[in-house]
Amino acid sequence: MDGISAVAATPEGGVNRPALTPEDGQARAWLRQRFDDLGMRTVIDPIGNMFGILNLAGWDAPCVMTGSHLDSQPFGGRFDGAYGVVAGLAAAAAIREAHATGGFKPTANLVVCNWTNEEGARFQPSLIGSSVYDGSMALADAYAVKDGKGISVHSALGAIGYLGQGVAPRPRAYIEMHVECAPELERSGKTIGPFAGYWGATKIRAAVRGMQSHTGPTPMERRRDALLGAAYVMTELRALVDRAADVLHTSVGRIEAYPNSPNSVCSDIIMFVELRARNQTVLEWAEMEFGAIMDSAPAKAKTAGEILDIEYRRAGDFDKGLLDLVERVSAEQGFETMRLHTVAAHDGIRMTNVCPSIVVAIKSIGGICHNATEYSEPRDVEAGASVLLGSLWSLLLT
Amino acid sequence: MDGISAVAATPEGGVNRPALTPEDGQARAWLRQRFDDLGMRTVIDPIGNMFGILNLAGWDAPCVMTGSHLDSQPFGGRFDGAYGVVAGLAAAAAIREAHATGGFKPTANLVVCNWTNEEGARFQPSLIGSSVYDGSMALADAYAVKDGKGISVHSALGAIGYLGQGVAPRPRAYIEMHVECAPELERSGKTIGPFAGYWGATKIRAAVRGMQSHTGPTPMERRRDALLGAAYVMTELRALVDRAADVLHTSVGRIEAYPNSPNSVCSDIIMFVELRARNQTVLEWAEMEFGAIMDSAPAKAKTAGEILDIEYRRAGDFDKGLLDLVERVSAEQGFETMRLHTVAAHDGIRMTNVCPSIVVAIKSIGGICHNATEYSEPRDVEAGASVLLGSLWSLLLT
Repeated sequence: MDGISAVAATPEGGVNRPALTPEDGQARAWLRQRFDDLGMRTVIDPIGNMFGILNLAGWDAPCVMTGSHLDSQPFGGRFDGAYGVVAGLAAAAAIREAHATGGFKPTANLVVCNWTNEEGARFQPSLIGSSVYDGSMALADAYAVKDGKGISVHSALGAIGYLGQGVAPRPRAYIEMHVECAPELERSGKTIGPFAGYWGATKIRAAVRGMQSHTGPTPMERRRDALLGAAYVMTELRALVDRAADVLHTSVGRIEAYPNSPNSVCSDIIMFVELRARNQTVLEWAEMEFGAIMDSAPAKAKTAGEILDIEYRRAGDFDKGLLDLVERVSAEQGFETMRLHTVAAHDGIRMTNVCPSIVVAIKSIGGICHNATEYSEPRDVEAGASVLLGSLWSLLLT
Repeated sequence: MDGISAVAATPEGGVNRPALTPEDGQARAWLRQRFDDLGMRTVIDPIGNMFGILNLAGWDAPCVMTGSHLDSQPFGGRFDGAYGVVAGLAAAAAIREAHATGGFKPTANLVVCNWTNEEGARFQPSLIGSSVYDGSMALADAYAVKDGKGISVHSALGAIGYLGQGVAPRPRAYIEMHVECAPELERSGKTIGPFAGYWGATKIRAAVRGMQSHTGPTPMERRRDALLGAAYVMTELRALVDRAADVLHTSVGRIEAYPNSPNSVCSDIIMFVELRARNQTVLEWAEMEFGAIMDSAPAKAKTAGEILDIEYRRAGDFDKGLLDLVERVSAEQGFETMRLHTVAAHDGIRMTNVCPSIVVAIKSIGGICHNATEYSEPRDVEAGASVLLGSLWSLLLT
């Protein structure tokens, strides 16, 4: 981890490499050099995804893929993303050596990848590189995405020299190592956490409509206070969590208030609501319940609720065969496992649309993520790399 | 009213002239032209208050003052403030004419004024111009006040050319006409509503402190969601109204959220809270109760409440002699009166610290105020102007 952690390191111990910045360019140059050192062929596709191909079974053979992303949140942590790439490089080095000594007959090549803009910090949405790769986002739409300063993805890719022309390899299986970004492995004391599935997320932009009036003389019973209406919505939304049949996360992270003057009753509130659940039925139940809250809670403040738009990401499962493989390899190596469900998005979720895919977690101390103090201990970093190597070994020989 | 209503008019029928914006500058230019047309001398003081002096008794004579403010809420109404200035100009025109025809021997000059930043929408607190004038706010403190973009009052005054050097006149009496901004006159069917007194207001800037985290994986029980904490505060604040021993108004008109990103739990919320009551004891009870809410409600979201600052305006009475005068003049002109108490702040409250002062209301349809649909009927607008003229006449001859 030390090599890549030095690229755009921050004084707080993290890294600052938002997607397609010059710092991301430095991380990509570092990776290209590693590919060269390992005798891998580098392919850059049109959205800037990087693939290093280790020729084990001839250039026309199928492939098995691993990797993650080198971009980071602004002032993010060292492990989020980079760990999956570094673990892949370590596995490639070991497999290359075993292959050179003979007696090891792989039926596929090994590919290590670095997906463009996983984080979605500088450019929204997140997962742009793997979304273009799996066909869920058109290349032209991805190119047109702009950052807060109006710079497009196309222009930023060109500026760092990553508007590639290469044809991306399509693997027969994908495994991605990642830090957990949650505290469950640490609580359980177990070492390896294969994700059995991924949570769904429903993101809703909702409005409360009231009437602007004077905060002084307007009689209380005549007020139609949109901020008060929104407060009733938020407290009832939180109460859903305790009524849900399975785990449910709810949030309002962003609020916009109009006119937002100290002495005017708010006429309009916009809330950015998220519902997240492991179980798709719970997620749909929560959306229905939220609709009912939006019908009733604003009325307590003589205001009206309105759903402006909804974005869905369904809950789903990773590949059962890969889950079994990772658990078997971990057991053989003496590591205890715990099946997890990822709440955060990963490129490996997009890869379920392409081939059997799984994301496997190692411990994050305190579950801290998207923060410079994010940390995983050396023994966990090594355990994960070892399980990845064992699993890839098996997939390459299948 | 038509001339001033056209300055920064909005499609909805209101005006958009927050204090010291270019639009406020246009309204001031309009007023300056009216002063010139009426042969009045214009004085601009260091906080940008405008005074138009009609010389009736020689430049060394005492004066009687009327007026109000031309700044508005963002997308506010046409009458709030502007009516008092326009009624003053109409009275000045009539008195000037009467004076020119002779037989009228005033003992004082007439001053029509426009106070800077009555509304407190762009710059807080409200009543900055009259507060500097009556000495309750230091000029340097007023200059240092900044808007949401970091622009100071000093800089904004300079930008529109209203960093005046003039010496403000000090009157022997002050009458301000204003729309009621409440529905009591309309309900009673009476025409003129002199305010016998003014409600007290306690304005509190309060924070809720939580911790920034990811809205996805962070377990609900580990979240310290400042926006949710604020929602609990707002719903409990509203409930105080029903428990108060006498009429109480509560509001949160402005909210600031940090970091206000859709996928981060809010770390900090700032709320602009107002408590208003006719009865000073009820006001003090409400402040105490709000303190208790800030101690307990944020804890429901594992957050902490913090009072940042408090601004007090005690409940009080307007001048009894002026109240009698307005009632007598109204009766002579055939208008029924109803004694009111103003909940909203007016520059006339500050003027009680300078000289005998009163604010007199005319009807607002539906009690609507701080809204583009704010409206007073022509017959009420004229009745108020007529009572003002009669009252000023009496004060100028005293």
